[in-house]
Amino acid sequence: MDSIIALCKRRGFIFQSSEIYGGYNGFFDFGPLGVELKKNLKEAWWKDMVHCRDDIEGLDSSIIMSPKIWVASGHVGGFSDPMVDCKTSKMRYRADQLFFAPVIVDGNTIGYVSVLEDSSMQAVAEETADKMKRKQGVQGTLAPIELKDYTEADPSEYELIPSPATGEPGSLTPPRDFNLMFETKVGALSDSTATAYLRPETAQGIFANYKNIVDTGRVKIPFGIAQVGKAFRNEITPRNFIFRSREFEQMEMEYFISPEADWQGCHREWIDWCKDWLVSVGLPADMLGEDVHPLEKLSHYSRGTTDITFKFPFGEQELWGIACRGNFDLTQHQEHSGKSMEIFDQESKSKFIPHVVEPALGVDRLLLAVLTAAYTEDEIGGEKRTLMKFHPRVAPYKVAVFPLLKNKPELMEKAQDLYKKLQRKYNVFWDTAGAIGRRYRRMDEIGTPWCVTVDFDTLEDGTFTLRDRDTTEQKRINEEELLAMLDAQLY
Amino acid sequence: MDSIIALCKRRGFIFQSSEIYGGYNGFFDFGPLGVELKKNLKEAWWKDMVHCRDDIEGLDSSIIMSPKIWVASGHVGGFSDPMVDCKTSKMRYRADQLFFAPVIVDGNTIGYVSVLEDSSMQAVAEETADKMKRKQGVQGTLAPIELKDYTEADPSEYELIPSPATGEPGSLTPPRDFNLMFETKVGALSDSTATAYLRPETAQGIFANYKNIVDTGRVKIPFGIAQVGKAFRNEITPRNFIFRSREFEQMEMEYFISPEADWQGCHREWIDWCKDWLVSVGLPADMLGEDVHPLEKLSHYSRGTTDITFKFPFGEQELWGIACRGNFDLTQHQEHSGKSMEIFDQESKSKFIPHVVEPALGVDRLLLAVLTAAYTEDEIGGEKRTLMKFHPRVAPYKVAVFPLLKNKPELMEKAQDLYKKLQRKYNVFWDTAGAIGRRYRRMDEIGTPWCVTVDFDTLEDGTFTLRDRDTTEQKRINEEELLAMLDAQLY
Repeated sequence: MDSIIALCKRRGFIFQSSEIYGGYNGFFDFGPLGVELKKNLKEAWWKDMVHCRDDIEGLDSSIIMSPKIWVASGHVGGFSDPMVDCKTSKMRYRADQLFFAPVIVDGNTIGYVSVLEDSSMQAVAEETADKMKRKQGVQGTLAPIELKDYTEADPSEYELIPSPATGEPGSLTPPRDFNLMFETKVGALSDSTATAYLRPETAQGIFANYKNIVDTGRVKIPFGIAQVGKAFRNEITPRNFIFRSREFEQMEMEYFISPEADWQGCHREWIDWCKDWLVSVGLPADMLGEDVHPLEKLSHYSRGTTDITFKFPFGEQELWGIACRGNFDLTQHQEHSGKSMEIFDQESKSKFIPHVVEPALGVDRLLLAVLTAAYTEDEIGGEKRTLMKFHPRVAPYKVAVFPLLKNKPELMEKAQDLYKKLQRKYNVFWDTAGAIGRRYRRMDEIGTPWCVTVDFDTLEDGTFTLRDRDTTEQKRINEEELLAMLDAQLY
Repeated sequence: MDSIIALCKRRGFIFQSSEIYGGYNGFFDFGPLGVELKKNLKEAWWKDMVHCRDDIEGLDSSIIMSPKIWVASGHVGGFSDPMVDCKTSKMRYRADQLFFAPVIVDGNTIGYVSVLEDSSMQAVAEETADKMKRKQGVQGTLAPIELKDYTEADPSEYELIPSPATGEPGSLTPPRDFNLMFETKVGALSDSTATAYLRPETAQGIFANYKNIVDTGRVKIPFGIAQVGKAFRNEITPRNFIFRSREFEQMEMEYFISPEADWQGCHREWIDWCKDWLVSVGLPADMLGEDVHPLEKLSHYSRGTTDITFKFPFGEQELWGIACRGNFDLTQHQEHSGKSMEIFDQESKSKFIPHVVEPALGVDRLLLAVLTAAYTEDEIGGEKRTLMKFHPRVAPYKVAVFPLLKNKPELMEKAQDLYKKLQRKYNVFWDTAGAIGRRYRRMDEIGTPWCVTVDFDTLEDGTFTLRDRDTTEQKRINEEELLAMLDAQLY
């Protein structure tokens, strides 16, 4: 993981947001290479999900929408984590990540310890308890420290548990629900009716526009609406680089089906489609898994959810969630807006509110998975090299063009010709600096699949040296063959 | 304008946000065709600005950044409009759009009238004054009503001017600066240190990452950094459809030059580049103009700003601003962050903070200009038609494929073959419904440049009917010619 983060920073894939001001926790910026990689992932998804499927329409709804949407969806009422504030330090903690225990010596409670969730928290708590015992000069046997999280605390214990910020008890509040949506104020009114939210998911923008698309398009059941865009959640503990951040991007699709349809079959089809797609952008099938949510853990509106997981460096984690949401969302919007969400199905000659299957993928997570899968270290001729084995579809640069020597005008001219020609269609790298071997290494490290060198043979017979990133093999190829190869590999 | 808005809604280009909840002022959603048009405009800009220029790098910074950035840039202190609140109604008005006048009869002030800025405000104010005179039963001659805006009011007049909401005086506050940035709270602290802002422009994300890109890239002066992304301004009076909205998208580029460089020449080059680019995506040159900001109206940091204007249906308005910002922004960030923003220029062997030329374009404005320019009504064979003459580069669909008859399997199969082949590269429309003439009309209305019909001749000789949107001319073409034509027109 550290090598990936270091390479991301060194080669301009990903920077921490506001780095010159010491950074801003939970936010990231994508540099010249990161922005290309991210764009290519989004483009590939859009092409396969929207352009190449006749049953799916695209959409781009606003980030700030009417707050009524978030009331209807249940986010205003329920999208929250239990939080606890320290009144002294103004720090805020997730109650289920703040652990505590009474310190008991020979049956007497002499105080409380608290720790933040961590692999070493048990050891830290025991050490702290031991110090407390010594400091108070208490003799006797310390009972085993049994940590519980703050949501399990008895109300009488709140004022006894020390704040992790100050180490002193008395400043922690009871746990209370803290909404994860970012709030803001919109418009010409100065009171609370101006409250609005940054969307915590793109899905509701789709449900809110479902009726517009049914009314203006020529869709028929089953059909889908797809959207790519930013979403925001005020996560208290953003972590694992870009895996869990506060500002992120989603690619979501809502697939509307008849209430009578075989939803389990449809669910399975989408899980398979999504897995195939991940493989098509370069994730190895053996790094993917499936996590079927047990029935008792499903949200109240869900009939079934399966996560496609990926083996990240920090463990196997959710990458793409495919949820069967029933007709919960559309029914809620029908009730709250008073507008009918029913659709007339020509085939069955019946009217109904459709059910949905929702594949929801985070762009940033996908990008991290792609970086993880691509990162490779190998040895070429006794020399270590780092390379990013990006699938050609998503590689930031598709091909690099090198004139063998920059002080030979005829090589430069020929190479510029090719460069300009390829640029019409592809993102192409131009490099004239240093030995060809060093130029290859630079391209390996940013994952450019092919390098083309214009050399003296080019002037004779019109062929170039084509060098492959993964195998490092070189072969002669002419312009027509090169164009045909790129066309075949990249579309 | 009304025809354009109606077509946008009818054909699924643009919807008002949250329409099922009565809409949400200042926010818009892009439907299946709008999202394609918008993506194509952004793609064209990115290709020409970033991929095809060796001196420009891409970036994608976060929407929420450290609030310190907005302090340094001056937005926290100064990005505001003077506002006035009505304490009774909680309505808020821009002080420079709220006009008032004393009502004077024979030298005696009998009250005040107020109106919101509008082409008919003078007439409305006079009528209101006349009513006041009659209602109070005052005899005499009404002096001419001389409207001033609220920023020009004497403090003693604030409590005499009636609120436009209630018609009664006494509830308006003095004007005060109201920041246009949307505020929110981020993270684990519950106090004011958690305050953050949605970016009101993408430019500061570029300045904040300038050092990262200088340190990790191989840039040399002059060079640019380009970014496309959402920005947010709490405009009090969003208007003219998507021309001035609260959530919008920008395409900005900061071009860093030596302080010794000929900045006027560079400014002129960028103005010309931008105009050429607008023409390349289909805006007629004669609908473009230039508005040179007079020296006395320039922002304090600007040395010169020229807007490229467009003749919108509601008047000639700013489309693309090209500003010379000097070294104001980088100098501010150097001061506030303590990090050096100097760059070493190999050529002049000197170190300096570069100056910038900034072409800043709004995607939504550009989209409105493109819609305006494309909207055409003509007559074909005595029948009226509406067509969108989009440039092929930006048209939502590039080509439509029609089997002449849907009940002939051999036509359907041949047409599907072609459809699938074209889909590898382009967004293609498939239509089997109704007479060919009606299918042409549907494509005209959404601006698809070419329609290809698979008919009985296709089965004989492999040629298709290619029909041109603008001329309605038809000709026979084979697959190879079709692919070559699309390749030539679309790249």
